Amino acid sequence: MSERDVNLKALFLGPKSENKDVYTKHLNRLFEDHSEWRKNYHPEDQPIIKRDDFKAEDFAMTSEKVEDVLTQLSIKLRSKSLPWHSPRFLGHMNSETLMPAILGYFAAMLYNGNNVAYESSPGTSEMEEEVGADFAQLMGYKNGWGHICADGSIANLEAIWYARNIKSLPLAMQEVAPELVEGKTEWELLNMSTEEILDLADKAKDFDLIKEKSARGCGQKIAKLGKWFVPRTKHYSWLKAADIIGLGTENVEEVDVNELFRMDVELLESKIRANAEQGIPTLGVVGVVGSTEEGAVDDIHKIIALRDKLAKEGIYFYVHIDAAYGGYARSIFLDENYDFIPQDQLHAKYMEHGVFLNEETQWPSDDTYQAFKAISEAETVTIDPHKMGYIPYSAGGIVIKDTRMREVISYFATYVFEKGMDIPALLGAFMLEGSKAGATAASVWTAHRTVPLNITGYGKLIGAGIEGAWNLHKHFENKEFMVNGKKVILHTLVQPDFNMLDFSFNEEGNTDLKVMNKLNHDFYEEASYVNGGLYDNDFITSHTDFAVPEYGNSPFSYVERLGFSRAEWDKEQKVTVLRACVLSPFINDLATFDEYMEKVDAAIQRKLERIYNRK
Amino acid sequence: MSERDVNLKALFLGPKSENKDVYTKHLNRLFEDHSEWRKNYHPEDQPIIKRDDFKAEDFAMTSEKVEDVLTQLSIKLRSKSLPWHSPRFLGHMNSETLMPAILGYFAAMLYNGNNVAYESSPGTSEMEEEVGADFAQLMGYKNGWGHICADGSIANLEAIWYARNIKSLPLAMQEVAPELVEGKTEWELLNMSTEEILDLADKAKDFDLIKEKSARGCGQKIAKLGKWFVPRTKHYSWLKAADIIGLGTENVEEVDVNELFRMDVELLESKIRANAEQGIPTLGVVGVVGSTEEGAVDDIHKIIALRDKLAKEGIYFYVHIDAAYGGYARSIFLDENYDFIPQDQLHAKYMEHGVFLNEETQWPSDDTYQAFKAISEAETVTIDPHKMGYIPYSAGGIVIKDTRMREVISYFATYVFEKGMDIPALLGAFMLEGSKAGATAASVWTAHRTVPLNITGYGKLIGAGIEGAWNLHKHFENKEFMVNGKKVILHTLVQPDFNMLDFSFNEEGNTDLKVMNKLNHDFYEEASYVNGGLYDNDFITSHTDFAVPEYGNSPFSYVERLGFSRAEWDKEQKVTVLRACVLSPFINDLATFDEYMEKVDAAIQRKLERIYNRK
Repeated sequence: MSERDVNLKALFLGPKSENKDVYTKHLNRLFEDHSEWRKNYHPEDQPIIKRDDFKAEDFAMTSEKVEDVLTQLSIKLRSKSLPWHSPRFLGHMNSETLMPAILGYFAAMLYNGNNVAYESSPGTSEMEEEVGADFAQLMGYKNGWGHICADGSIANLEAIWYARNIKSLPLAMQEVAPELVEGKTEWELLNMSTEEILDLADKAKDFDLIKEKSARGCGQKIAKLGKWFVPRTKHYSWLKAADIIGLGTENVEEVDVNELFRMDVELLESKIRANAEQGIPTLGVVGVVGSTEEGAVDDIHKIIALRDKLAKEGIYFYVHIDAAYGGYARSIFLDENYDFIPQDQLHAKYMEHGVFLNEETQWPSDDTYQAFKAISEAETVTIDPHKMGYIPYSAGGIVIKDTRMREVISYFATYVFEKGMDIPALLGAFMLEGSKAGATAASVWTAHRTVPLNITGYGKLIGAGIEGAWNLHKHFENKEFMVNGKKVILHTLVQPDFNMLDFSFNEEGNTDLKVMNKLNHDFYEEASYVNGGLYDNDFITSHTDFAVPEYGNSPFSYVERLGFSRAEWDKEQKVTVLRACVLSPFINDLATFDEYMEKVDAAIQRKLERIYNRK
Repeated sequence: MSERDVNLKALFLGPKSENKDVYTKHLNRLFEDHSEWRKNYHPEDQPIIKRDDFKAEDFAMTSEKVEDVLTQLSIKLRSKSLPWHSPRFLGHMNSETLMPAILGYFAAMLYNGNNVAYESSPGTSEMEEEVGADFAQLMGYKNGWGHICADGSIANLEAIWYARNIKSLPLAMQEVAPELVEGKTEWELLNMSTEEILDLADKAKDFDLIKEKSARGCGQKIAKLGKWFVPRTKHYSWLKAADIIGLGTENVEEVDVNELFRMDVELLESKIRANAEQGIPTLGVVGVVGSTEEGAVDDIHKIIALRDKLAKEGIYFYVHIDAAYGGYARSIFLDENYDFIPQDQLHAKYMEHGVFLNEETQWPSDDTYQAFKAISEAETVTIDPHKMGYIPYSAGGIVIKDTRMREVISYFATYVFEKGMDIPALLGAFMLEGSKAGATAASVWTAHRTVPLNITGYGKLIGAGIEGAWNLHKHFENKEFMVNGKKVILHTLVQPDFNMLDFSFNEEGNTDLKVMNKLNHDFYEEASYVNGGLYDNDFITSHTDFAVPEYGNSPFSYVERLGFSRAEWDKEQKVTVLRACVLSPFINDLATFDEYMEKVDAAIQRKLERIYNRK
């Protein structure tokens, strides 16, 4: 183990609050720092709340009320929150968050900067600029830029805003400065690459006027831009985004996924070509790195290769990577110098740095490796610090490949930023949101400075989850439970691309899909707040349905493997699965894993018995 | 003073950290509660971080790194944050935030609920539902609903999304279920009221299909919806919103403001009528309650009266109130039972509850009173807890008048919420964002439960700022400073509608507008980070420009009052003013006010001298 690698156990409060003392120490120091900072701003100024004020009757009453309400708050939080700090929780994308991130948020919240304007937040605005640079480096962007936003849905919306405005620029150029695009047909205008468009924008005399005539000014141009492709495994925010951005959900085309739940890129190609033959352009394609329900990683390298191939034929589409979930995992491929590690050196590096603890953990697949590598070729990437960044909610993020892109979505407000003003961190003019917490930037910054975005830091943290999922896959696959004399078998969806494992129970011999779906939904109810409780629940997981309206027939290969007929699938049209996102930083270790799996297995047994006893 | 009125001095840490002890006590208790909650979840489970782990060399290294980074964070925060806790800060919309709000955020962040789904956040989702109900009550909505969002820009975008999708429904009905709108012309379809449309939606057999054919599905329908009116004083987010939502900025019409910086409603009427004559409908009108640069309150009652008048003539527009800034101030008009206080009882109530301390404070004007009252007639309202809610960033909010409206923007994601599922707080399906911090809801909830949204709570808090601005207006108006033998006079823009005072310096006898603008910009630089510093600055304010491209000639009346000719205005085309948002809860008290104004006056004198000595 290299001396510079982080030790994950020093970064979290811990499932049993093992690091409580040091946490308390930091917490009080940061609060002390702030309190004394306040007091020492013009130390000659008198206190405003004076001795007599403390003695007032209504002061005591208000103080008591504050205390009472905080007590109620604590009761509500303790009785109605999820115990995701324990390895008994293997469900939604929740887990421990980083101690430095929570403390960073808390400290910065006291100073309450607003990162919409440098003037209101010099310190935290600079932190956000640094975080944006971290993101760009993580994605392999040489001239990139990034910022924090509310969440992945907003980042995705901002990405389609970028795509829409950029793609409509050539139409505006033709109106305002036709010399820039002389001789081009409308089809050619709608199939220019982002780079070509930005190069032309650089040459334009009055770019502001061109912007005004692009989709941002003339909404009617949106209708010409064509289709937006997403895989069936898309996050639902893509439909919302197409609605909001004025494209309309009718212009979203969903591409079937293969048996690994990755977008079928050959099918994508045929759809794009079929549209092109009808004169319909492709606005853009979304590749998903870490699908929400399966943790699947689309073959980004194949999407990029398709883009490059079609570009030679005069068809160009924008590529956005929705790596809200998987974005931070690119750090597992970067060495101490942030260089992408050659594939044949990966395993040795992982063992050297303790990214994986077990020699047998064989991750990633070739495709997953190539997919992460190719992210650097996309125009934009969504990355959520509040997912695999182990940052508390809400912290989303977006990264752009070419800083020049910012101009197509920029607005300037007199009171917060003057156009052309030379300040170090001008954020507010270049994002969808307005006011935003400097504390979020401080939280992410503190985490990044403590945990580097390479294999010595986040790589180790994310590796722990991937190895945990690997362990879980091995443990769950074909596991048998005897319940009231029946054999219930646990099946896993796929070997995970990332740190999520989907699974389902089926009774041996059952070929009725409805029965299996009910069993898994019943199990979910036992393993969630619905029937199982929260604090009093001994194993918690989440669930999802793969149904025809969203997935088409892609899930049939799984259903078939479990012994169901095509007729059953066509009748039931959905399969209910359980879904475990393995974010715990501690169950990569086999001793801990085994200790907890004994408890989890016993809990599963109890839950199944409760279900069968009700029958 | 009623026994139930809050004492503001017990609600904040205080400019000199006067309440540090009690703050520290609560902070540690909340952290203790959480730590022990973790430990006692299945107390039989073993610690995962063990004695030997603490002794590891890399554990110590990582711990030291955490400490070092937190030290760097604290240094950055203390050296690069604004000292808004002091009355020496009279600038941007920043000030102390409520102790219960900060503690509530901190506590809930430890449990890290995600309010997109009830399943991930039972406790904080319920808090957000309660907060939404508080908002609806505050606005006087009987069947309303609300939620927290990232900020005012997002709330405004969500509002125009509502307006766009609702207004396009009748066109979709004509396609999908023509019997619903039989015999209506396209003009009539585009001028149906929100209530009529929702009533028809209730009757529709397949509303999902109608939704699909509305603007959300078919972006091309947006082009038919017409114009979106905003006052010149609009927040710049309205241009962004029109861009994003696919309307295009070309469909935003700006209405001049009068000498009080309130929208000229007569002009609005004539613009709407002129458009109607050309067959162009009006999608909606934004009334601003608390303009960002002036704190002006539009005459909402006149906008509502115009809407009702035109509705009788077959012209209907959606009304949105952008009360991001002023929304919480509606609590100053609500009595202990949340009833709107009759105008003739206001003054007595204010004195009784200590909303104002000084008999001479005469607020509100008739128009401001009527404007706040009429908010209850609008379709949607933006309200930012992180502004006048004294909540830390980021916390925006939106309120809708009729819960049925939610369906036009709803999306359902399998993994977080099942359509039709009966859970108490289904938030995620009905908002623009996705994942969001439960901590924000907890923060606002804790504040609302401690500080009621009426004259006993927020009314007092906001009253303190309004009275502070009233005091400042009186103190600044025509104040003279002798600098190097020249007389520099301080002018105020208007008697504030709210708690913001704009002002500018001019040298006696100067009639060159450029010279005055430079003086004020120089002053701003001295009174901000640019030249004046932050922690070492003795008076901090903000600035803005009223320039022709945004304001037209509306600011000329102010410029004229200061003695500048029309020719000067036409030449310079802008006036630079300084901008003080009075959020301090403590300078309503005249003793405190006078004590600090002595310091502020001296600081102004020093800054002016520095400017003049450089000349």
